[in-house]
Amino acid sequence: MRTLFHLWLDPFSRKVRVVLAEKNLDFKLTVEQVWDRRTDFLTLNPAGDVPVLVEEDGTALSDSAAICEFLEETAPDPGLIGKTPGERAETRRLVSWFDRKFYEEVSECLIAEKVMRRILGQGAPDSRVIRAALANIHTHLDYISHLADHRHWLAGEELSLADIAAAAHLSVVDYLGDVPWADHESAKHWYARIKSRPSFRAILADSIPGLTAPKHYANPDF
Amino acid sequence: MRTLFHLWLDPFSRKVRVVLAEKNLDFKLTVEQVWDRRTDFLTLNPAGDVPVLVEEDGTALSDSAAICEFLEETAPDPGLIGKTPGERAETRRLVSWFDRKFYEEVSECLIAEKVMRRILGQGAPDSRVIRAALANIHTHLDYISHLADHRHWLAGEELSLADIAAAAHLSVVDYLGDVPWADHESAKHWYARIKSRPSFRAILADSIPGLTAPKHYANPDF
Repeated sequence: MRTLFHLWLDPFSRKVRVVLAEKNLDFKLTVEQVWDRRTDFLTLNPAGDVPVLVEEDGTALSDSAAICEFLEETAPDPGLIGKTPGERAETRRLVSWFDRKFYEEVSECLIAEKVMRRILGQGAPDSRVIRAALANIHTHLDYISHLADHRHWLAGEELSLADIAAAAHLSVVDYLGDVPWADHESAKHWYARIKSRPSFRAILADSIPGLTAPKHYANPDF
Repeated sequence: MRTLFHLWLDPFSRKVRVVLAEKNLDFKLTVEQVWDRRTDFLTLNPAGDVPVLVEEDGTALSDSAAICEFLEETAPDPGLIGKTPGERAETRRLVSWFDRKFYEEVSECLIAEKVMRRILGQGAPDSRVIRAALANIHTHLDYISHLADHRHWLAGEELSLADIAAAAHLSVVDYLGDVPWADHESAKHWYARIKSRPSFRAILADSIPGLTAPKHYANPDF
């Protein structure tokens, strides 16, 4: 069976987990404490980060975008990127929006301050960084609402990798209790639809020792 | 004709320029001063960054990875990502290495300190940031040398988007005179092969007003 090296609150690992589940591909999860910089793991991925997917034949794949494209090519049903080149460009643009822009402006900051500092024993979180991330998230939720108001799913009529990437990042922030859902109705309804998908069930069942999610986290009707 | 909105010393814009040239696609360049946050430009790309490629039919594409995948799908000859899913995953992994890791650790720092500060009138560069980037670059040049010692091109036997991404970032750093070529023979020989390609000619002819490139910059035999 394939193995996914991951971290519980890493949005990129979560994105790949949901893609694997949407495509009905079996896999087992292994937590990789990337900060240990284990030699065997660096052989699999010289960049040293998760996710890393090891296929049954031993092929090691890294970088979440490369992994998702590989899965789309080797397990094309259901397609998650789009049919025409234009649709596919739109999906990839939005994936990059969440993986690059949302990550840099919101999820990376909150993970660094609220999770990594604790794991690495780096002291109290920097409240200025957290405040900035919590201010930035509104623009992104507005953008999700705007897209969800104009399209059935974020990149078009079909569920795509754009929805999965956005939901992966938001699910981590939601686990930390930091998504202001009440101010963003359309984004909330879109996320409720994601939460009700079987592919998202494992994400909602995640429970990180010593870090309890708020009650609404796992509830599709929040 | 298609239009590429770009900035002269933006590695992502350079990557797309070289891909367009390798695929023999005509385009005209338009400089977009992204810091002006022009409304018409934000309509083309809400993320507000370059490159943005506007196709002849008016379709606006953004995010350099999405643009390169679009060009690979619509103008597949010559292929620049690889043939098998495994080859393609390796190309994409390396593109991401340079666009994410090299950018964060090297090129973004040098561009921010040496170029953007001047354009935006933000005072003298931060020498600590520059020193860190100049220390980091050695690991990346070692990695390029390692790959070039074991493969004909960085991702395998054929020239690929991995070579183009790496060269795009390095060309910007080289324009600033900051690539320690003398310490990295194999990387230097690989880059000399890239420099001699017709698709790279326009990049080597770039001349940014008020910022002169070192003499070796345009010389394939450096």
